[in-house]
Amino acid sequence: MAGIDAVKPDVVIRKKLSVSNNILSIGSEHFDLEQYRRIYVIGAGKASALMAREIENMLAEKIFYGVVSVKYGHSVPCRKIRILEAGHPVLDENGLSATSQILQVAEDAGEKDLIICLLSGGGSALLEKIPPGIPLEAVQKMFKMLLGSGANIEQINTVRKHLSLVKGGQLARAAYPAECVSLIISDVIGDPLESIASGPTSPDPGTFRDAWEVLERFGIHDNIPEILRQHFKRGLAGEIAETPKPGDSIFQKVKNIILANNFGALEAARQKARELDYNVLVLSSRIQGEAREVGKVLAGLAQELLDSNIPLARPACILLGGETTVTLRGEGKGGRNQELALSAFISMAGVKEPYLILSCGTDGTDGPTDAAGGMAFPQLWEETNSRNLEPVKFLQENNAYPFLEKTGGLIKTGPTGTNVMDIMAILVP
Amino acid sequence: MAGIDAVKPDVVIRKKLSVSNNILSIGSEHFDLEQYRRIYVIGAGKASALMAREIENMLAEKIFYGVVSVKYGHSVPCRKIRILEAGHPVLDENGLSATSQILQVAEDAGEKDLIICLLSGGGSALLEKIPPGIPLEAVQKMFKMLLGSGANIEQINTVRKHLSLVKGGQLARAAYPAECVSLIISDVIGDPLESIASGPTSPDPGTFRDAWEVLERFGIHDNIPEILRQHFKRGLAGEIAETPKPGDSIFQKVKNIILANNFGALEAARQKARELDYNVLVLSSRIQGEAREVGKVLAGLAQELLDSNIPLARPACILLGGETTVTLRGEGKGGRNQELALSAFISMAGVKEPYLILSCGTDGTDGPTDAAGGMAFPQLWEETNSRNLEPVKFLQENNAYPFLEKTGGLIKTGPTGTNVMDIMAILVP
Repeated sequence: MAGIDAVKPDVVIRKKLSVSNNILSIGSEHFDLEQYRRIYVIGAGKASALMAREIENMLAEKIFYGVVSVKYGHSVPCRKIRILEAGHPVLDENGLSATSQILQVAEDAGEKDLIICLLSGGGSALLEKIPPGIPLEAVQKMFKMLLGSGANIEQINTVRKHLSLVKGGQLARAAYPAECVSLIISDVIGDPLESIASGPTSPDPGTFRDAWEVLERFGIHDNIPEILRQHFKRGLAGEIAETPKPGDSIFQKVKNIILANNFGALEAARQKARELDYNVLVLSSRIQGEAREVGKVLAGLAQELLDSNIPLARPACILLGGETTVTLRGEGKGGRNQELALSAFISMAGVKEPYLILSCGTDGTDGPTDAAGGMAFPQLWEETNSRNLEPVKFLQENNAYPFLEKTGGLIKTGPTGTNVMDIMAILVP
Repeated sequence: MAGIDAVKPDVVIRKKLSVSNNILSIGSEHFDLEQYRRIYVIGAGKASALMAREIENMLAEKIFYGVVSVKYGHSVPCRKIRILEAGHPVLDENGLSATSQILQVAEDAGEKDLIICLLSGGGSALLEKIPPGIPLEAVQKMFKMLLGSGANIEQINTVRKHLSLVKGGQLARAAYPAECVSLIISDVIGDPLESIASGPTSPDPGTFRDAWEVLERFGIHDNIPEILRQHFKRGLAGEIAETPKPGDSIFQKVKNIILANNFGALEAARQKARELDYNVLVLSSRIQGEAREVGKVLAGLAQELLDSNIPLARPACILLGGETTVTLRGEGKGGRNQELALSAFISMAGVKEPYLILSCGTDGTDGPTDAAGGMAFPQLWEETNSRNLEPVKFLQENNAYPFLEKTGGLIKTGPTGTNVMDIMAILVP
């Protein structure tokens, strides 16, 4: 919980930003607020409303105006900044409308203005402008094809940025010549600026040629709607402006700052565990893989700790972060964190010494459930045995939620308003 | 390589055993060889011939006689100990015949004798006596059904021990009242004595009831050959002797000693890496999971090392051990270690800084190939690109061998004569 608290939008804004004598300081960056004619706030993402409110609290009357696009149900009251709700994970008309207003703010801002741009996970769907004349349905149809084609997320994003007038640095272009500082909560492994919220204020190394090659490679270039094929052909012919590339002079006016990420959550969890007198080892904030297999690896680490005090002496805490995936096999209810915990629990069968393995989404929701994640520890066997439950069968059906619910292994935090992927911990007292 | 050398059968015998003034010392255990009438050597497993030869070198004329069962092609010349070759992984008539002779030695030995029993991986197939009247084919048929049923290895072993007259402590019972010391090279995660070579000199906690419940649970109790059903029914009725249980007095005459295991290989690798001035972290000797997913986790550790010197400062070496699994999807050529390396390589795409991720079977063979394992490092991209190879496609087809062969990522050691599962390493200079 300490890990999650440390990366909440309001907390990171308060912790990483400060205003003193009209100087806004963000880490080693300083902005003399008196030198700007106006200060605007824009942004998109699930955490962006909470970020906006805290920025308002901090800068108060200094903000001239702002517009932020957030997921339905995620708005909070602000005075100067308009919070607009839109569809997520599927882009809808409200998202397109919010983006128009955001782009209008960016266009309105001039050379002497400062734009503070608040970006967080979900920004890809909440911030989108489709090239004129192309219907939303055509775009949606193509991405459905792409998602099922075997293309990876980077390849999909290359295509996405070339069917957009805001992604891939194009929001920064709209903001130019105003100064733009993007404050970012990262929900992507390794914090690649060009991927978080599809990189609206970050250079795009990809080209129309790259995008078309993705469509060709996965064999869908002949099947996409004709109007899209026309669009890409015009792009290839140089008739549509490319996204701004690394080295483009507009980026001299842009600063992208990661305010919170998975590593920050791990660091906070490390401090908390130290306060509780655990020896702590942070292994990696970049863990990926199928949830049930990563669960086995975590069990292997826990077993070694129990056997031989390796890799550190007890009481021991090993922390990992990242985001696992789940391949659906059954019709059950669960999420990647719950599935990881259940798999670890099965691997630890027979262990009676105390241990705890947990996996938890920092956003407080894991899959389509009201739990944030799951835990494995020996006492779960009591209910498992007394109710005659078979954990392996629950795992086979992707049905971790009911198993953990019945045995006492669910973690519930409620939505946290932030997202820096998942935290996993192994505790051996 | 240092890790493998340290767990070779002859090396561990020389390192862990010593004879001085007619006292045989094995760690903290001491045997006054003068007090015994005769010393016999028995054993089974892929490493047991090399162990036998070294024991002969050490004890020379003190050995009265011995019989050891090894895999075809694994025998070495011995003077006092007969090395018999048999089928592995599938038990054959030669294995049954070798086991009869081994049991005969155990029966022959009396109260004043010492039996040295050499056990290693593969002993399950190389040491077997089927209850009289039951044909080998019936047993093989049942295990085929069990292997496809979803039963795990522990459950299969419970059944196996109750269709055997040598597994599950029954070799120790034959040896009684002679003193028996088993020297074991462990190829099982966590070194459970009852699992290595099916635990011929170790108490068996399982019962005929447990074995029958496994058959019922996986729905094959009605489909196994009638003669086996009769056998289990007689066992349930108490008409067949149970395997010796924990606490049985025969085990007062038995010592089971792990001579080499995965952890030993990791420790030796740690020392070698230290000599090379690496900072070293041994994480676990108990890593399990699908090879390609474990490869992603290792890549996540390597990426964090490259990014942030976490969890240790460079030059850094992280060591892990265990045994991964491969779910066959394609028709390709490879093994679990090669597949792990290929998957890690794919996850590290785009990384140009030097790193090395390797996974290697300590037995020197990985799957049905002549390689011991595979490596991932940035230079592999040179051949990948110049030959236009698609690593993802090779992985999809379980076809890691040709990919690594073409790019330079194979590890070849030749058969090492030992097996303590696999070693994985992450090196960042």
